[in-house]
Amino acid sequence: MAKIRPVGDRVVVKPAPKEEVTKSGIVIPDTAKEKPQEGTVVAVGGGRLLDNGEHAAIDVHEGDRVLFAKYGGTEFKLDGEEYLVLKENDILAIIG
Amino acid sequence: MAKIRPVGDRVVVKPAPKEEVTKSGIVIPDTAKEKPQEGTVVAVGGGRLLDNGEHAAIDVHEGDRVLFAKYGGTEFKLDGEEYLVLKENDILAIIG
Amino acid sequence: MAKIRPVGDRVVVKPAPKEEVTKSGIVIPDTAKEKPQEGTVVAVGGGRLLDNGEHAAIDVHEGDRVLFAKYGGTEFKLDGEEYLVLKENDILAIIG
Amino acid sequence: MAKIRPVGDRVVVKPAPKEEVTKSGIVIPDTAKEKPQEGTVVAVGGGRLLDNGEHAAIDVHEGDRVLFAKYGGTEFKLDGEEYLVLKENDILAIIG
Amino acid sequence: MAKIRPVGDRVVVKPAPKEEVTKSGIVIPDTAKEKPQEGTVVAVGGGRLLDNGEHAAIDVHEGDRVLFAKYGGTEFKLDGEEYLVLKENDILAIIG
Amino acid sequence: MAKIRPVGDRVVVKPAPKEEVTKSGIVIPDTAKEKPQEGTVVAVGGGRLLDNGEHAAIDVHEGDRVLFAKYGGTEFKLDGEEYLVLKENDILAIIG
Amino acid sequence: MAKIRPVGDRVVVKPAPKEEVTKSGIVIPDTAKEKPQEGTVVAVGGGRLLDNGEHAAIDVHEGDRVLFAKYGGTEFKLDGEEYLVLKENDILAIIG
Repeated sequence: MAKIRPVGDRVVVKPAPKEEVTKSGIVIPDTAKEKPQEGTVVAVGGGRLLDNGEHAAIDVHEGDRVLFAKYGGTEFKLDGEEYLVLKENDILAIIG
Repeated sequence: MAKIRPVGDRVVVKPAPKEEVTKSGIVIPDTAKEKPQEGTVVAVGGGRLLDNGEHAAIDVHEGDRVLFAKYGGTEFKLDGEEYLVLKENDILAIIG
Repeated sequence: MAKIRPVGDRVVVKPAPKEEVTKSGIVIPDTAKEKPQEGTVVAVGGGRLLDNGEHAAIDVHEGDRVLFAKYGGTEFKLDGEEYLVLKENDILAIIG
Repeated sequence: MAKIRPVGDRVVVKPAPKEEVTKSGIVIPDTAKEKPQEGTVVAVGGGRLLDNGEHAAIDVHEGDRVLFAKYGGTEFKLDGEEYLVLKENDILAIIG
Repeated sequence: MAKIRPVGDRVVVKPAPKEEVTKSGIVIPDTAKEKPQEGTVVAVGGGRLLDNGEHAAIDVHEGDRVLFAKYGGTEFKLDGEEYLVLKENDILAIIG
Repeated sequence: MAKIRPVGDRVVVKPAPKEEVTKSGIVIPDTAKEKPQEGTVVAVGGGRLLDNGEHAAIDVHEGDRVLFAKYGGTEFKLDGEEYLVLKENDILAIIG
Repeated sequence: MAKIRPVGDRVVVKPAPKEEVTKSGIVIPDTAKEKPQEGTVVAVGGGRLLDNGEHAAIDVHEGDRVLFAKYGGTEFKLDGEEYLVLKENDILAIIG
């Protein structure tokens, strides 16, 4: 894909198709009000700026399969594919 | 279960069935508006990022029986079982 | 009682029966909109996590008779008795 | 009075009777929407917990005649007398 | 006047009569929604408590003619005169 | 003009007449909901108080032509001229 | 263009025409509620003021093609061209 570098504590995620039965066996319940979503991390920012002027390393990495809070991201299309830019803090867990 | 690693100060909890009379003898009163819930910690994140760039250790551990604020978590299913991802701060107390 | 360990800056309090005329002679006025309540501390957490990664000691101790803000806690039952989990900050004063 | 020790940055104040013409000559205007009130400090907490784990000394002392923001406190009765628990920050000024 | 010592980062100001044409030539426009007001500082607190436990010096001094945000203060009467207790942060500028 | 010293991180700005075609060629679009405005800095405060007790230098200087967020300031008249007191943070950019 | 220097952690961006099919192939979906927008950075401020009094370097640079949150900026015209002043934090990612 065209290169994209998230800024600060942001990550770019390619969301998994919603009908997909994931390899990890996670199925998001239909009735949950705040549904988390699965996806794969495709790019990671330089990390949150700390008060001492350094950047904190981000705990997720390119290729990680993640569960994320759906409400938090911003959607965009790149080369015809949908992606989301999320704050690291919207990543709930790494799967697998 | 499929491995799941919570990010930052999050923990994954397997909620106890609601009708269960717990071993610890805790019964949540029906009339309470904000009902806490019992569960068992199944995974723990690396801890909240401190301003000095280190991660604070999380005070609950895998296997702990906990009382948690129900409103705070995000539900998901893994291998047919229901779990919650919670912030450590939503864990009220460790039982037993 | 079954052992319960509050997490972080939380304390567990056994509320005094409301009709009780306390030993300390405190009577909560009926007309107050925000009524404080009396109780006895039965368990104390490890303290709030400071930015340097240490835990601040909690200023109330097991056995302290306390006045607390009623709105702040979460109620639960343990071995048939009612308790509250409160943040240390919801404890207004120690009596006696 | 029965001993009462406020927690953290709280102080206990005995409010002056409202009709009282205070010694300091302060009269609270009737029409003010946010009326401050006079009282006498009867107990002082250990001070706000600082990020370095120490407690900041409280700037008001037992016996101080103070002007305080009325909205901020919690009322209670002790030995038949009315008192308020206030945050130090709700004390506006020391009189006299 | 009776002595009054503001607490923390507060200052006591004697507001200028509103019809007054001030010496500095400042006239507050009638139509402004958020009208600043002029006054004279009569007492200054010990300053805001910093995280290191010290108090920050207040930048205005007794006798300073100041422009302040009217909404922020608390009015009171002392020896028949009207005063305001303000946070230092509600002082916009020193005139003259 | 009569001397005016803004307190802390505030600056005093003389707004440019709105019909003016500025030298820098900036024209504020009529339809913008949040219109920035141009003006000239006439006085600068001592800077925001840092947690270490020092004051941070303000990045704009007397005489700077600036673009500022209109909503943030407080208007006043001095010697018949209109001015605004703004927080440094309401200054968007320096022009020219 | 006339020189413009953003203050603090702000950047000035020249937004890409909305109908443009960008070189990077990004197309913003029409139905997204919170549409990000593409643009080119034309000026960068000195960076956010840290608590130690230093300025944090801004992670985007003049000439960077960026994806930004549209809601965050303030629009203005300079020499007949439209620009936005944004906080660095409103820049989501760098493209290409």
